[in-house]
Amino acid sequence: MATPVSPLATPLPALPPMAGVRLGAAAAGIRYKGRTDVVMVEMAPGTTVAGVFTKSKCPGAPVDWCRNILPAGKARALVVNAGNANVFTGKAGRDACAASAAAASKLVGCTAKQVYLSSTGVIGEVLPHDKLTAALPKLHKALSADNWEAAARGIMTTDTFPKASTRVAKIGGTEVRISGIAKGSGMIAPDMATMLCFIFTDAKIPAPVLQKMLSKGVEPTFNATTVDSDTSTSDTVMLFATGQAKHPVVPENGGAMLRDFAAKLNEVLLDLALQVIKDGEGAQKLVKIDVTGAVSAKSAKKIGMVIANSPLVKTAIAGEDANWGRIVMAVGKAGEPADRDKLAVAVGGVQMARKGGVVPGYDETPVVKHMKGQEVHIAVDIGLGAGKATVWTCDLTHGYIDINGSYRS
Amino acid sequence: MATPVSPLATPLPALPPMAGVRLGAAAAGIRYKGRTDVVMVEMAPGTTVAGVFTKSKCPGAPVDWCRNILPAGKARALVVNAGNANVFTGKAGRDACAASAAAASKLVGCTAKQVYLSSTGVIGEVLPHDKLTAALPKLHKALSADNWEAAARGIMTTDTFPKASTRVAKIGGTEVRISGIAKGSGMIAPDMATMLCFIFTDAKIPAPVLQKMLSKGVEPTFNATTVDSDTSTSDTVMLFATGQAKHPVVPENGGAMLRDFAAKLNEVLLDLALQVIKDGEGAQKLVKIDVTGAVSAKSAKKIGMVIANSPLVKTAIAGEDANWGRIVMAVGKAGEPADRDKLAVAVGGVQMARKGGVVPGYDETPVVKHMKGQEVHIAVDIGLGAGKATVWTCDLTHGYIDINGSYRS
Repeated sequence: MATPVSPLATPLPALPPMAGVRLGAAAAGIRYKGRTDVVMVEMAPGTTVAGVFTKSKCPGAPVDWCRNILPAGKARALVVNAGNANVFTGKAGRDACAASAAAASKLVGCTAKQVYLSSTGVIGEVLPHDKLTAALPKLHKALSADNWEAAARGIMTTDTFPKASTRVAKIGGTEVRISGIAKGSGMIAPDMATMLCFIFTDAKIPAPVLQKMLSKGVEPTFNATTVDSDTSTSDTVMLFATGQAKHPVVPENGGAMLRDFAAKLNEVLLDLALQVIKDGEGAQKLVKIDVTGAVSAKSAKKIGMVIANSPLVKTAIAGEDANWGRIVMAVGKAGEPADRDKLAVAVGGVQMARKGGVVPGYDETPVVKHMKGQEVHIAVDIGLGAGKATVWTCDLTHGYIDINGSYRS
Repeated sequence: MATPVSPLATPLPALPPMAGVRLGAAAAGIRYKGRTDVVMVEMAPGTTVAGVFTKSKCPGAPVDWCRNILPAGKARALVVNAGNANVFTGKAGRDACAASAAAASKLVGCTAKQVYLSSTGVIGEVLPHDKLTAALPKLHKALSADNWEAAARGIMTTDTFPKASTRVAKIGGTEVRISGIAKGSGMIAPDMATMLCFIFTDAKIPAPVLQKMLSKGVEPTFNATTVDSDTSTSDTVMLFATGQAKHPVVPENGGAMLRDFAAKLNEVLLDLALQVIKDGEGAQKLVKIDVTGAVSAKSAKKIGMVIANSPLVKTAIAGEDANWGRIVMAVGKAGEPADRDKLAVAVGGVQMARKGGVVPGYDETPVVKHMKGQEVHIAVDIGLGAGKATVWTCDLTHGYIDINGSYRS
């Protein structure tokens, strides 16, 4: 099945080499024919790492593997395969992780517990790790600082375009770079992180500080997006810091010196999260939902996510129908404090409903025009408090049914 | 848009006249052309009533109206319109309710507070109640005990077939009848009840007892079903007892004398709830999900509903793909206690996954055959406790997108 490239696709940015990072991709034939499906990244000695993972009660074996080795905070390699998620595979899944990490560690010259693993694709089929480990020696020899695009492409499954983002940040006056790649298209409703996202920086930052920034950064970015309300068993966001940049020493608690870095990191996280939504299965439109006036920020986010996950709201957007009644319906079912008679709804900046009814003299014309665009903006004011949140989703189209009614992912 | 009749449609059962109930339908031209859209039911003096309504925070004006008059427990008439939900219509909506009830009460010779109202259809447009009240006098004159089918058809919106169910129950050795009609197809994820369902009986049962039986009965029936996870603003189930049957006096607390009645009432509730799911927008398959081994019945139901609402599970079923990995994914995201390595999944009675992995020697052939049928059975054992629940849903197909991407409902 050839899924056409999302109309919302963004061009891949130029990703310059980063000190301490060498990458590559190879075709191991794990599931797909005629494309790369294994990615390897080697990082300089001293690289620190932070990670956030799915909250699913049925996580994949690679997620368990990464969680177990994360407390040490050190990483030398990352191995990712596409086409098989190594989820719900029991002991065979754990063995596949151990074998993959062992093979990579020999090539890199590190311990197996410094090798991070990720897999996405079919659930419940044993990962043929012999194919993966057989491909590693040649792949390792070919690692290069210029292979970012190959890595971004090698981790794709139902993605229709590769996803990457890069920023330059200053730490104590010294420029450092933050570059990340991500994949994801369906089963996207991250609870702690989304599908796969790997971010690298040449900054030298202690692992606990890195972890704190990452955990905080995913909340308003990856964790504020949804394609289909289905939380993956493999969600993973990892941040690696090679420590090759020559900036002043970052204090143990991070602090003000990392303010710019944290801001740029959040930009990268949001950029990548939105690229995933733009590649949402069947997506034709990107939808931004601003909720204000809720009793708390948490309540605002819950309401926003219920709107973003409503099949009726999402199909109305696909149909370019300015159907604000369905937005009201979604607010009503969210289970959060709301008062019909204080609610206000705007689409494309035009107020449609206010105080329990349609705005007098409401003219649909500018809203209809807005709905025809590729980006739809919904603003809901609950009218009860100061809590606010922004979430993002895509529309629900025939493409989603096509992809998921036939592809076993 | 002519939506074809659901392949899961059930034939309308014969509904014999019921003592104390006269019904009728008329075309008031509220939204639809060339079909009936207003239904009126007159009930004998002394009729008691019970009702359960949507938990939406943005309920329709008729829901507010019924909630307000329900504590008196008396009903003489029911007026239902299709095509306009009278939701989020502010004061105009409340005025429409008052005017409709007043008009009906004059015809029947009762107080306005003995007239129950329901509306479904478009949200946010003022109900043209003058059209409705103008149609009532002629409609009232034509009320008849034989008009059950006309009533079942007159309340439909995106429904593709009329829905009714009837049973005979014994109270103290005397036969009484329970007959109900329902409508609903999309925006179905009842939290307290689903779209519209009206049940009538000639039994003589005090309102508090009636209410207790109804509230208990909707939990494992209507409240265990979902089409699209979207809870309606108009969900209503009402039960009217005309008291015309000559059975022994029912004690104030109900008790053993009502055991058979309660059982038959639950059969009617389940029958009607499943008819709504069988008419789920775009539905091609009815899906039954049994969850066992959860830590509690509540937990089992939550897990079942998360499976039932997962777009990935529902599209896999539409594609006749025995993709148990997506069922595992849904269990994992439910947020309820679960242990990947104790989980077991069966489809069509065939165990597929057990103890954290695929069943050794698993042969997909019989499952593929089962998936091609119109009824799909999923059984999930959590392996932790004795909690169990059964829920029902339908598949997610192109039909759902067709209906909701174009129809403003």
